[in-house]
Amino acid sequence: MDEKRRSSGGGRDFKGAQGRRRETPVNDGPDESLIEGRNAVTEALRAGRTLNKVFVASGDTDAGLRRLAAQARDAGAVVVETDRRKLDQMSATGAHQGIIARAAVKEYSTVEEILAYAREKGEPPLVVICDEVSDDHNLGAVIRTAECVGAHGVIIPKRRSASLNAVVAKTSAGAVEYMRVARVANLASAIRELKDAGVWIYGTAADGVSGLWETDLTGPVALVIGSEGEGMRRIVSESCDFGISIPMRGKISSLNASASAAIVLYEAMRQRSLK
Amino acid sequence: MDEKRRSSGGGRDFKGAQGRRRETPVNDGPDESLIEGRNAVTEALRAGRTLNKVFVASGDTDAGLRRLAAQARDAGAVVVETDRRKLDQMSATGAHQGIIARAAVKEYSTVEEILAYAREKGEPPLVVICDEVSDDHNLGAVIRTAECVGAHGVIIPKRRSASLNAVVAKTSAGAVEYMRVARVANLASAIRELKDAGVWIYGTAADGVSGLWETDLTGPVALVIGSEGEGMRRIVSESCDFGISIPMRGKISSLNASASAAIVLYEAMRQRSLK
Repeated sequence: MDEKRRSSGGGRDFKGAQGRRRETPVNDGPDESLIEGRNAVTEALRAGRTLNKVFVASGDTDAGLRRLAAQARDAGAVVVETDRRKLDQMSATGAHQGIIARAAVKEYSTVEEILAYAREKGEPPLVVICDEVSDDHNLGAVIRTAECVGAHGVIIPKRRSASLNAVVAKTSAGAVEYMRVARVANLASAIRELKDAGVWIYGTAADGVSGLWETDLTGPVALVIGSEGEGMRRIVSESCDFGISIPMRGKISSLNASASAAIVLYEAMRQRSLK
Repeated sequence: MDEKRRSSGGGRDFKGAQGRRRETPVNDGPDESLIEGRNAVTEALRAGRTLNKVFVASGDTDAGLRRLAAQARDAGAVVVETDRRKLDQMSATGAHQGIIARAAVKEYSTVEEILAYAREKGEPPLVVICDEVSDDHNLGAVIRTAECVGAHGVIIPKRRSASLNAVVAKTSAGAVEYMRVARVANLASAIRELKDAGVWIYGTAADGVSGLWETDLTGPVALVIGSEGEGMRRIVSESCDFGISIPMRGKISSLNASASAAIVLYEAMRQRSLK
């Protein structure tokens, strides 16, 4: 997608500490990305459009529908079995024929492309990994700040994460147009790929071992940001090379995910500016 | 920092690209803070509850209603003349009798109380001034980060600003409970009060004169954060002693208001930790 998506960002980026919100089909994205009906979804796949999710009527065993769902899965979409009444609710046309897809507002990159971009710029990689940041506004805000510091890419998991929908694009204030975003089936593998390329993995954690300002962030860095409700998953946290502790002087001791990202990314930028 | 340097005026601050969003009564807050009907509003005023806003049926010239509106205004509430159909929409009880008030979730502080708290802690004041941050989530996020760095208070204007409602409280992750928030009729006067107390006023501006990392933030600091849509107003920007420019290395050059706040507040905290 080439056209400039002018943001109207700003907005309600921050969702705060309110427990993990489940993604529900009806809230999953904006209507303009809805692709409804078997023909339309078939055409979208044929045209190579990136589908974030495909909702298929659960219990519908029609062979054509199932084949289409399998094709979508092969093409990288998350296929969600969905109650037909929910499909009816989601549908703008009222003629979904048991399948509704949500297209991404932009093509995803790969981890390799992100690393190649850093090499091309002759800079040590600066990458943000969002571990299950499920709130669209938070993901948009992280992408926006990542763009402002000149990070090379953002990595998100396929499941339990916001994806590149129109709300994310809007909240990012246009940054999605410039930022490489890789959407991976398995964060642990993506982290291994980064490590193999010499990138150090830093997690933000309240019990992090090294203080933010004492941590050298001038090398190849991937920064892991945890979900709004629950922080990093253990499997992700354990694959971090360093745990960064962001200093806290107040009583609540918990920053919003996108605020944490902003603070650490700007500290990385500050340190790099001194080199 | 002996000489007060006036910021070279006006300009472009950190903007989301959206225009200013008008507050509309129906979206202004959560239901639990709604106080409906003449008796209930009278009782709330008598009990000394802090009312953020009072919506009064426009065109209703009933003397009792007008007297009540005047009382609310005297008590510090913003009185908004509202179409009766909008009152009907807002109303949870269906019996608003031409008046609906929204209570604050917490009592406001004063600028003097914020300064006194800093003195009490023996610390140079660290204060955040939100100039027309109208989005509840952004204000909540700013209060949350301010609490995490141990700031002494947040100042908001009465008009064109989010106020302490339940959405702000929730987004702040409980920080409103600990943070002194002063709500002032006139930001320019509040800024003068801070200056008289020896506090330096720092605005964040894309064309700011001094770079973030070159700016000494260890003294008494009030940081002005502009609105999501339009940045600082000129009158506020002109009363800043310093314009801080947050470095940008990307293409979009615009941070979200609460990200800007997080970055500058943590830089202040870093510098203070070195002293």
